[in-house]
This record gives sequence, structure tokens and C-alpha cells, in this order.
Amino acid sequence: MTEEELRTLDAHWRAANYLAVGQIYLLANPLLTEPLRPEHIKPRLLGHWGTSPGLNLVHTHLNRVVRARAHQALCVWGPGHGGPAVLANSWLEGTYGETYPDVSRDAAGMGRLFRQFSFPGGVPSHVAPETPGSIHEGGELGYSLAHAYGAAFDNPDLVVACVVGDGEAETGPLAASWHSTKFLDPVHDGAVLPILHLNGYKIANPAVLARLPEAELDELLRGYGHEPLHVTGDDPRAVHRSMARAMDLAFDHIAAIQRAAREDGCQERAAWPMIVLRTPKGWTGPVEVDDLPVEGTWRSHQVPLARVREDPGHLRELERWLRSYRPEELFDTDGAPSAQVLECVPDGELRLGASPHANGGLLVRDLPVPPLERFAVAVDKPGGTMHEPMRVLGGLLERVMRDTAERRDFRVVGPDETASNRLQDLFQATGKAWQAGTLPVDEHLARDGRVMEVLSEHLCQGWLEGYLLTGRHGVFSCYEAFIHIVDSMVNQHIKWLKISRSLAWRRPVPSLNYLLTSHVWRQDHNGFSHQDPGFPDHVLNKSPDVVRVYFPPDANTLLSVADHALRSRDYVNVIVAGKQPCFDWLSMDQARLHCARGAGIWEWAGTAETGTEPDVVLAAAGDVPTQEVMAAAQLLREHLPDLAVRVVNVIDIARMQPREEHPHGMSELEFDALFTRDKPVIFAYHGYPWLLHRLAYRRTVHPHLHVRGYKESGTTTTPFDMVVRNDLDRYRLVMDVIDRVPVLAGRAAPVRQAMEDVRTRHHAWIREHGTDLPEVAEWTWTS
Amino acid sequence: MTEEELRTLDAHWRAANYLAVGQIYLLANPLLTEPLRPEHIKPRLLGHWGTSPGLNLVHTHLNRVVRARAHQALCVWGPGHGGPAVLANSWLEGTYGETYPDVSRDAAGMGRLFRQFSFPGGVPSHVAPETPGSIHEGGELGYSLAHAYGAAFDNPDLVVACVVGDGEAETGPLAASWHSTKFLDPVHDGAVLPILHLNGYKIANPAVLARLPEAELDELLRGYGHEPLHVTGDDPRAVHRSMARAMDLAFDHIAAIQRAAREDGCQERAAWPMIVLRTPKGWTGPVEVDDLPVEGTWRSHQVPLARVREDPGHLRELERWLRSYRPEELFDTDGAPSAQVLECVPDGELRLGASPHANGGLLVRDLPVPPLERFAVAVDKPGGTMHEPMRVLGGLLERVMRDTAERRDFRVVGPDETASNRLQDLFQATGKAWQAGTLPVDEHLARDGRVMEVLSEHLCQGWLEGYLLTGRHGVFSCYEAFIHIVDSMVNQHIKWLKISRSLAWRRPVPSLNYLLTSHVWRQDHNGFSHQDPGFPDHVLNKSPDVVRVYFPPDANTLLSVADHALRSRDYVNVIVAGKQPCFDWLSMDQARLHCARGAGIWEWAGTAETGTEPDVVLAAAGDVPTQEVMAAAQLLREHLPDLAVRVVNVIDIARMQPREEHPHGMSELEFDALFTRDKPVIFAYHGYPWLLHRLAYRRTVHPHLHVRGYKESGTTTTPFDMVVRNDLDRYRLVMDVIDRVPVLAGRAAPVRQAMEDVRTRHHAWIREHGTDLPEVAEWTWTS
Repeated sequence: MTEEELRTLDAHWRAANYLAVGQIYLLANPLLTEPLRPEHIKPRLLGHWGTSPGLNLVHTHLNRVVRARAHQALCVWGPGHGGPAVLANSWLEGTYGETYPDVSRDAAGMGRLFRQFSFPGGVPSHVAPETPGSIHEGGELGYSLAHAYGAAFDNPDLVVACVVGDGEAETGPLAASWHSTKFLDPVHDGAVLPILHLNGYKIANPAVLARLPEAELDELLRGYGHEPLHVTGDDPRAVHRSMARAMDLAFDHIAAIQRAAREDGCQERAAWPMIVLRTPKGWTGPVEVDDLPVEGTWRSHQVPLARVREDPGHLRELERWLRSYRPEELFDTDGAPSAQVLECVPDGELRLGASPHANGGLLVRDLPVPPLERFAVAVDKPGGTMHEPMRVLGGLLERVMRDTAERRDFRVVGPDETASNRLQDLFQATGKAWQAGTLPVDEHLARDGRVMEVLSEHLCQGWLEGYLLTGRHGVFSCYEAFIHIVDSMVNQHIKWLKISRSLAWRRPVPSLNYLLTSHVWRQDHNGFSHQDPGFPDHVLNKSPDVVRVYFPPDANTLLSVADHALRSRDYVNVIVAGKQPCFDWLSMDQARLHCARGAGIWEWAGTAETGTEPDVVLAAAGDVPTQEVMAAAQLLREHLPDLAVRVVNVIDIARMQPREEHPHGMSELEFDALFTRDKPVIFAYHGYPWLLHRLAYRRTVHPHLHVRGYKESGTTTTPFDMVVRNDLDRYRLVMDVIDRVPVLAGRAAPVRQAMEDVRTRHHAWIREHGTDLPEVAEWTWTS
Repeated sequence: MTEEELRTLDAHWRAANYLAVGQIYLLANPLLTEPLRPEHIKPRLLGHWGTSPGLNLVHTHLNRVVRARAHQALCVWGPGHGGPAVLANSWLEGTYGETYPDVSRDAAGMGRLFRQFSFPGGVPSHVAPETPGSIHEGGELGYSLAHAYGAAFDNPDLVVACVVGDGEAETGPLAASWHSTKFLDPVHDGAVLPILHLNGYKIANPAVLARLPEAELDELLRGYGHEPLHVTGDDPRAVHRSMARAMDLAFDHIAAIQRAAREDGCQERAAWPMIVLRTPKGWTGPVEVDDLPVEGTWRSHQVPLARVREDPGHLRELERWLRSYRPEELFDTDGAPSAQVLECVPDGELRLGASPHANGGLLVRDLPVPPLERFAVAVDKPGGTMHEPMRVLGGLLERVMRDTAERRDFRVVGPDETASNRLQDLFQATGKAWQAGTLPVDEHLARDGRVMEVLSEHLCQGWLEGYLLTGRHGVFSCYEAFIHIVDSMVNQHIKWLKISRSLAWRRPVPSLNYLLTSHVWRQDHNGFSHQDPGFPDHVLNKSPDVVRVYFPPDANTLLSVADHALRSRDYVNVIVAGKQPCFDWLSMDQARLHCARGAGIWEWAGTAETGTEPDVVLAAAGDVPTQEVMAAAQLLREHLPDLAVRVVNVIDIARMQPREEHPHGMSELEFDALFTRDKPVIFAYHGYPWLLHRLAYRRTVHPHLHVRGYKESGTTTTPFDMVVRNDLDRYRLVMDVIDRVPVLAGRAAPVRQAMEDVRTRHHAWIREHGTDLPEVAEWTWTS
């Protein structure tokens, strides 16, 4: 590297550092055209300085290598709380001003850049949806590397750099993410270049990886499948040289691996390069403050000089700090960055802040979802046949997988359960991504597979988020109970989408589609620990503009719901459906109509005349509850034929909410037409019963709403015993009706007793035989 | 090892394998005293065979080494779905029959052991609370190693073996757990002996670690801080010899490390031994079934022969399989294990199923919680002073930490936030556990520290669970939003406690206490991604016998709640409290009384006369909502002095539920006395407002309940702007009152307009100044 090039890199880095400090501190006087005064300082000093100089260094050197090679790149900034750094770089390269014209690349724009940071009405302190070039918030740590891999899959020309902080490296999801090396295909995927930034400290503690002997750390990283390149130092010139060399070596190494795989057909898994960057936390900031060491310690994590407005000493120190970057060399009098500063910055879409991959909606193509009729099950009459809904859906997904074989923009992820969840038809169209060793007995493994199975819900979620945010499509199939493992990740994704939707420049990306199966009612092998239907409760606290929750009751409704989800944008769609044989209730046409309405009366199932008020409403959401409601309706028809029963089925659970609270919410009129205003409603719900009350508490009929659902009672037992234990069974539902319909008064007492009796008989039977009562196991619907 | 010893080990292993297969298949004929017939077979074949022979091998060899050395040991069975193996071993060693006398160590007991497994009314298929010797369910994978470390901390004489399946090893939490080596003190803690069991497959896929070249795997494990010992093979005799040698080497190595640290004062972090066990999945089971390879493949994961009742060929194959263990050599005609089988089994409490550490309630001592008066803040009048509640609590915790210095049975865990959460007084009593490298600039690190900080909520939770379940005490302090990271872990812990409480032989263990702070309303540095108050929603779906959620509104109430939590058993206590300065409302005596009631009228804060019905109830739960309600009450007193306002404060949120749904639920009478039956109730709640409706929907006053809370609107902004954005601010609350109290009719319109005006002024002010309105920032309560 020439001395001149080093000077340009250093100038860029100093400019970025200056701008980062300015954002944290300055309300005015951005170019220090006059001595700093207290009124130039923000009244509340918020932000994170500690990680910023390291991020700036990485950005400067990514600029250099991307420009030199004209190579498409994206960067995932794991320490996203170093927002000032990424914002500074975006402003320098011009993408910020192009996205937000009032924050222009001049003194006025610089002033706005500074003022808006962490300021009311401004921008968040973290990398966020508002930040050009970003697909990763970095607030909740742990997901950067998984996001980077998700972005790299099926993007063969892309290098995704990923800064991993040594704090984040301690998290479980990040620790698991290193093994993504076993799932990255050097032929069809791009490359991920992890940059482990060891600045030594978290908020208040040293970081584990920063305190390992280097030999031990290298063993760890090689054990992860990487070849580490070390860049260590606190002398900027030496570090610039070392970092430039490491970047070149890494990009060369990546190119060599890809060439070997793509041109020479090499099948060996290579050790991918990575960079270990050791620089001081808060580098170039105050060395000491109030006689305590700050640079290179945890004390530089947030705001190193905290009392700048009140303490003239701190104010002087800040001014010295800012001037140490020699802003007069970096910006002209109008505040525009000098040519030297911009020398390393690449052009156009090669700029990290301008990559279309970071605004995936620009690149997305509609998924070729085939006509559902090809996969629909024939339904001549309701309940006459049974299918495994997930297996039927597997046929549709197989077709989508097949039809995207060239485009490669669709993946299915899951924790080792694709076949267990009955989606095995997918393996007719693609394999399971796998780059580690294979044995002859293995099945369906493929270096270029687009089904991704790893026993980590975190990895599944992180990979898929990265894949979607870069404009591709996907589905996550998961055991229902264990999707809570990613509760906090989906929180962050929903928050991301909520904000993205408010930004016109962010184009809509494909929805995150969950298929939750192996659900609470059918944990025959696993029992209590595998029973938790609470994910809808969790997501429904989040933005209603983003969240959709569906309970298709059979195969054709599942097809219709999936069709809608696969075509949709910017949603999180939660689809809860069983994998066990389930009655087919609706033909494909009926299913479409029912799904479009989201909830409706199944007139053929009840005894109430069309257009008349029923005596009672029996409602269901979910496949098992629907079966029990149908059986209860049949029992009522048989035993109490003059009772006017209306059967309602709800697929889209948000329809229960008022319109003001969720865009899918029913109007009062619609709701009352379905559920009446004052008749008893016995609602059999798939999950925790309280959710229905939380959704429907404002409805007129609410005082008459009685919900049955899972109340945390389970073990390894028979399917019917599960519903009995939780009072969701057909006999209990009939008893609920009898207990709540006044017109029945005493005359239904014998029926009620008969229901009690059969439940007692059930109890004895399953303890003796270990199976369900024959009348339950063999029950079918008769209309 | 002598040939005779090898024979005894193999006999024990074969016996355990026989019993494992028997549990999965047999309903009768346990000793095969007659040829197998279909009616001897369970009608539903449930369970997991694949991992069982490996677990049996580990148990056999742990027996041997524990007996030979008379060394206290515990084992955490990561693949807990291999329940048949652990149950088999417990039955063999006699602990099962001692715990459950009807499952005796004879033919009748063996029959019951087989029948009950995964059978209605029987026992779950996984290792579970019902299993003697267990502290770990192993259903949701990922937490075994963290649990093992938790058990080992402060148990210097204990070796905690931990079987990690190669499936589980792919999870994030497990991947992070390996670094627990940097937190284990060889002087004061016991040892953890990880046994990584590479049987090659998960449900349907090869496992990543099983398919790494051995050299790469060794680098990884050495990078984790371990010295791996390899045991590989499929010839039982060779594997027995190799496994016995590895166990001896590991125990010798552990003893040497401990001796060096304890006797020689060695300060070097040693590489702890671990065992890598490579044996076939489903070892000794059917080699092929229906012409497909099964032993050594994923096809042996659950039930290798699936149609035993229907297919005579399968039935014959099962009988051949069972008889291959030569049961006639292993059990006498009464079904009792032979002396040879029991030769390796240790005595008494050394048996793995009998360890008191696995039934921690046997060992627990009450925590020395000091009198609260020493730490209470003086409150002459409400709202006259401010304190940081968490800092006040830190004083109490410091005292507890100090008073347990000898006992070492109290730890505080958190993700790098103890000081940030204002609990730094703890460091006067102890350090932060740390065994990695140190630098002169570090503070508070100590090899024997009992504050544990690692940037992994999973590790914090896993360590603490292991610590509590072995009879010690602890607190987990966490940023409120990020506790969702462990949603699924707390699910499992609550399920564990729920079942444990129903087992008389399981003694109560200390509660899991969460301090959730840095909460939604004060994310000044971090903004939207750090805002989620939904953890109470999550845990309140779980067993009400276990779950408690508290919102102390000030320092003294926090002390009182914490006191209760630290003394309690078998609960999950969620305490939500701020770390920022907060008004002191109650004296210590008042706080105790208020906490004991869980909810109460603050008569001094309202204008309604004691014993009279108010016009409106203003209620709050949480510190920030309490402040806003108090300010609203003051505004109402000032502007509408003749309005009878009652102020209610709720600490224990479950009090809102009906008594039938939660043991803390208020009776109807109590509830109505607090909230009235028909007056408007404006409730300012800390979290998502819908939770209150879900809890209180059955209350008479519910139609008049209007809840304000966090509705997912946030960014980096001022504290008061946060409440304004979410309509929880004092001015909005006053408007709510005006809108809902009929007696005010039109006459309050000017007041309402004044409230609107100040909100408009706020909006302009913060966008200009970046700070809150002076009248808000400087507000104090005047009575």
C-alpha cells in the first residue's frame, strides 16, 4: 500500500470518527467553526462510542477492497448500537443524503445528522431500518452472523462481511452460527466474511474471547471451520496496513475457494477466511477522564465524557478530542468531505449503504405459487375423508421448490423436522443443504439443497430473516412448542418490519411464514415439555400491521392460507396446523371462501336455520378443536334435536379483535352477525383460552363467551385424553352447552349425565387399554 | 480391567438395554417367560430407542467409577428423551423402587416399569421430575451443559457428568455453554465432565459435530477449553475397556486440577477433560428392518420396529432383539437383577438416582435475609424524595451475599448488567466470577466471585436453574426486553416445578427470581428494540401455582417484594422495577402492608372519602405508571376538586384474576371493594394493556375498565415522550377521566382542552429542546 493510499484511508477513518463523536455530542457548531460552548452540546448525551471507531475502521477498509475489486458486498454490523459509525459512513459515501435529502453532504446536512441522532423526532441510536444499507438492528445481540449467512445464501456474487462484537460472541445464537460454514455452498451461495472485533470489553466486563490466549482462540475458530487472519494494534498506520492486507487476503481466499468449487468442481469443504480485529475499545477517544482510564476499557462503552455541558474541563476535552481528527483537513468550508476522504469510497450500488440487497424489496420477484387445485383434496361431503394437512401442503411446497430451481429464491428451514412434519415431498425437488462429511446411508443431503435443517431454531430464524430481508422467500416449519425459542428474535423482526413499512424507500419484502405443527394436542411421543401453544399470544402483542395468525382446520384451508402467506409481503404469518390425519371439511372452493372471510358459519354443521338466531353458538379455531366441535354438534343434533345450534369456524384469529385494533378485525355488525349479541358462545380454541378473551373483550356478546383451550395439563397420553384433560372434548362441550342454554332448563339432565358417564368410562378405558375409546377413535361425521 | 469386571459391566449394560426396550414395547410378559404374542405388545409404541444404549453405557461406567472412587456424582442427561435408559438404570440400582415402592425390583415391578412408560396414567417418555436423580428434562434441547455447571458451582466435592447429544450440540445455548469453563472455580466449585455423545444422527439428519474430521473437532473442543478423550467403537468389549479408561483418566485429571488449585494455589486455567463418545445410534438394536439399515442410522431414533402387533415378522424380530441381551442371565426367576448385574452399582447416596443434589430441597437452607429496615429509605411524606429502587435493593443483596460468604449458596447472574442495573453494591461483598485472563485495568473480577456476568441470557438462566434445583439460591437481573430470550427455558422450568410440586418426595427448592429492569419506559440509550414488557403475559399462561408477577412502585416496596421472593420456594417470581430515580411513596411499614395485600387503595392520594364510592378509580401497576397516575390525581385535585377520585395501586398483578384462576386472585367482594362494580376505572399499566383485560375480564366492573399501557410505540426519546407516545401520560389520563365520568358532562371541557394544549406544547418542546417540559421534569407530588 502506498503512503498516499494509507493517508486517504486514514482520512476517511478520521472523518467517520469525527462524525460519530459529533452525533453523540453536538447540537450545533458541527464544523467547530467557533470554540465549543455548552449550548452547542446536546442536553442528553446518548449513544455508544466504544465500538464506533472499530466499525469505522471496518467500513473504511471494506470501502477500499470493494472499490478496488468492484465486488458486490454487504455488511452486517453486529454491534449495531454503534449506530453513529454506520450513519457517519452512510453520510460520507452519499447514500444517506440520497435517501434523506435534507441530511445533505454539507454543513447544514452535517448539522442535521448530528442533531437528529438519538434526538426526539430524529433517528434511533442503533443501526435500524432507517439506516441505509442495513438489514440488521444489532440491539439485541446474537443474530448478526446468522443474518449474514441468510443474505449470502443464493447470492453467489455477494460477499457479506459481518462484524461480530466480542460481547455478541458470548451469546448462544452467535456461538451456534459459526457452524453455518457447514451449510454454505461455495457454488450457489456467496461468501460470509466474519470480522470478530475483539475490543476487549462489554458494558462492564472483559469479553471471554478477547481474553483467551491467541492459540486457544485460533483453535476455536479453526474448529468452527475458519482460517483466522489477525489484525492487532493501536497504532492507526500499522493497523491500516495490516487491515488492508487482511482484507485482500480474505477476498483472495474467498475467490480461490469459489473458483475451486465453481470451475474445478472441488467438493472439499474449505476453511473460509475470517478476520480477528483487536483494537482498543473507544480507540482515539479520551485516554483518561477524571483520572480514570477510559480508552481501551469498558468505560468508553457509551459516552466517555458525560458532563460536557456542566463541566468546562469535559467541554475542553471534547473539543480537543474532536479537533484531534483535524476536521479542517477532512471537510471543506461547506462541510463537504474532501476528495482525499472520499478516495476509498466505491461508486453507485457498490457503496455499502446503497446495496440493493439491503433493501430486498427492490430485488424480490413474486413466487410462482401454482394453482391450488392441483394439490387440493377432493371433498364430496364434509368429514368423509382424512388427510394429513402438512403432507398435502408438502406437495404444494415441492412444486414451488421445483419451479424455483433456476431462480433459487425459495428456502424451507426447520430444526431437523421437515420429514417429521410431513413435508418430505420437498426432497423430490431439492436436497438438504449439507457441506460436512457424508456416508452412503445418508438420504437427501445435497451441497446445493434448499431445505435447511439444523437443530437450532435460532439459526433457522436468523438464516431465514437474512434471506427474506435480501428479497427472497421462505418458510420455517417448527414444532409448535419450541418456536418460543425465537420469541425475542421474532420481536425484533416484527419491530423491523413495523418501522420499514413506514419508510417509503424500503420496498416490501416477503413475509416470514411460520408453519407450526407437531402441536400441543398431538405430542404422543413427547408429552408435557412439548406442549405450548402460546406463540400467538406472544406475537399478537406486537404491531397489528405486521402480525397474522391462522388456524386452518383441514388440508384445503391450509393450502389456501399458505398460498396467501407465500404471496404476501412484510407480514409475519403464523400458521398453526397439524401433521396427523385430520378430517377434510371443505372443498377447495369452500376453503378459499372461508379463508377469505377468515371466520364463518358452517351452516351445514349446525341445526340453526339460516337467518335465524341460534340458541347457542359452537365455535372453533384449530384443527383438533374443530373436530371436537363437530363431534359435539353431532351429539347435540342426536340428543337434543330441537336445539338451534350454530357452528362457527375461525381461521384468522385477529378477526376476533375490533377493527380499530387490528386491520383484520371484524366490525361490530359482522361480529354480532356471526356470534350473536347475547347467546351463549362455547368456543373451542387451539391454545390458551385467555387469548380469546383478550381479543374479544369489547364484543357485545363477550359476557356470554365461554372458551375452552389448553390449560397446561398434559403428559404422554392418547390424543383424546389430551382434550379430556383440558376440558376441550366433545362431551365437555355438550355439557357446556347444556349448562349455559337456559331453554334447556332441566330437561337435558339425562343427556348431561350420559356425557359425564362417557368421560368416566374414558378414564377407566385408557388406563386399562392405553388407547382411546373405540367410539372416539372410530368417530366420523355424519350430516 | 479384569475380564470379570468387564463381564459385570457388560451385564449391567445389557440389563439396562433390555429394560429400555421392554419399556418401549411390552405390556406384559416382561421376563419373556413365554414366547412373545401380540397381546404382550403395547397398542401404541412410543419412546426413543436411538439414544438409549449410549446413555446406558454412560450410566454403567459412571456407576463403576463412582463406586470405585466413592466420589459424589450427578449426571445431567442431555438426551432426556432417552427416558427408558435413565428409568432402567434407576430401577436397576434400586432408587426407583425406593421412590415408587410398587415398581419394585422384581418381576411384578418390572412389569409395572414397562407398562407405565408413556402409558396413560403412567410416566412421561422423557427424563422428567418424576425420574429420581434428575434435574433436567431434556425435551427441549440446549440446556444440559448450563444446568450441569449450575449444579457444580459451589459444590466442590461433586462431579457433574453431562451427556451432550450431537443434536443438542447444534443449539445456540449449548454452543455457548462450553465457555462455562471460564467461570468455573476449581477451588470452590465442583467439576463438570461433558460427555459428547456422537451417535451420528438427529431425527432425520446427520449431526454437524459427528461429521467433522476428528482433528477439526478436537480443535473446536480445545478452543472451548477442554482436553478431549475419545471413546469410539461398536464392539461392546472394546468400548467398555476404552470407556472405563477414559472415565479413569477424566476423574484423575479432574482430581489433579483441583489438587493443583486447592493445595498448590495454582492460578492457571486448566483444560478440563471431556469424553467424546462415538457409538452407533440404536446400538444393539435391529440392524435392518424391512431391508433398510436401522442400527447406526437415524431410523433408530424412535421405535425401530413399528408394526410389532400386526406383523409377525416384526414380532419375531423384537423377541430376537430382547433375547439377544440374554435376560435369563441378568434377572433371576423373580425378576431381580443378578449380583453380576449389580456389581458396578454404588451404594446409598452415591447412586446417581439417589443423589440429594438432584433433589435440592433436601439440602436447601433458608437464606439469611436481613431486616429490611436497615436498607429502607426514610419516607416522611409520599413523593418527597427519590431513590433508584434497584440501587436500594443492591444494598440488601450485598448483605445477603456477604452473609453467605462461608455457605456459598447464593449467586446473582446477569448478562453484563449488574452495575448498569444499579446493583453494584454487590461488588463490596464478592467479585465477578472469572477464570480467563485479566488486565490491571479490570475491576471486580475474582476467581471465586459469586456474581456471574456473561453476555448470554441463556447461560444465566441455565446456570441459575441448575443452581436452584440443587438447593441453592439466586437472582437473575436482566434488561426487561431481553428476558424473552429465555421464554422457552422458563416454560420448561415452570413445567418442571409444576410437576415437582405434585411429587411428595421432591422437596421444595428456592424460587427462580427475576429482576427485570432497564424497562420499557426508560430506554433512553437504546430505543425501540429494547422495549418489550411482555414477559408477564408469557409466564401468566403457565401454571398459576408457580407464577408470581410483581410491580413494586418504589424502593421500599421493591425491598419487601424481594424479601418475599428470596424466602419463597418453588415459584417463578417476576419482579419488574426501574433503575432510574423514582419517587418514594411508602414507608417501610406501609410498603410491607401494601405488598402483603398485593393491591390497595392509596387514600391519601385521592379525593374520595374513605368508605364512600368514588366517581372514578385511577389505578396503576408499575413505577412509571404510578408516577403518571399520581400526577394525574394531582391535576384532577387541582382542576376538578369536587370529583371523588380513588387511587389504587397494584403490585401483585395476579390479584386481578379471579380466585379460581390464581391462588392470589381476589375474591369478587375484595375486588369490587377496591375497583367498584360500575365506576370508570382508568388503569395505567406498565406493560401491554391487553394483559389486564385477560386477567380481569370476569370482573363486574370490567365493562368500565379502561387500560393504558405500552402499545409498541417507541424510539430513543425522552422519558416523558415515551409515556405520551403510548397515551400513558398524566394529561391523557386526566382526559380519560373526563371522557368517562358522566357527572362531569360538559363542565370539564376547559380542563380537557388545557390537557390537550400541554400535550401539544410537549410535542413542540421536545423536538426543539430534546428534553422534557420543565413542568414535567420538575414535577413533584404535593398532598
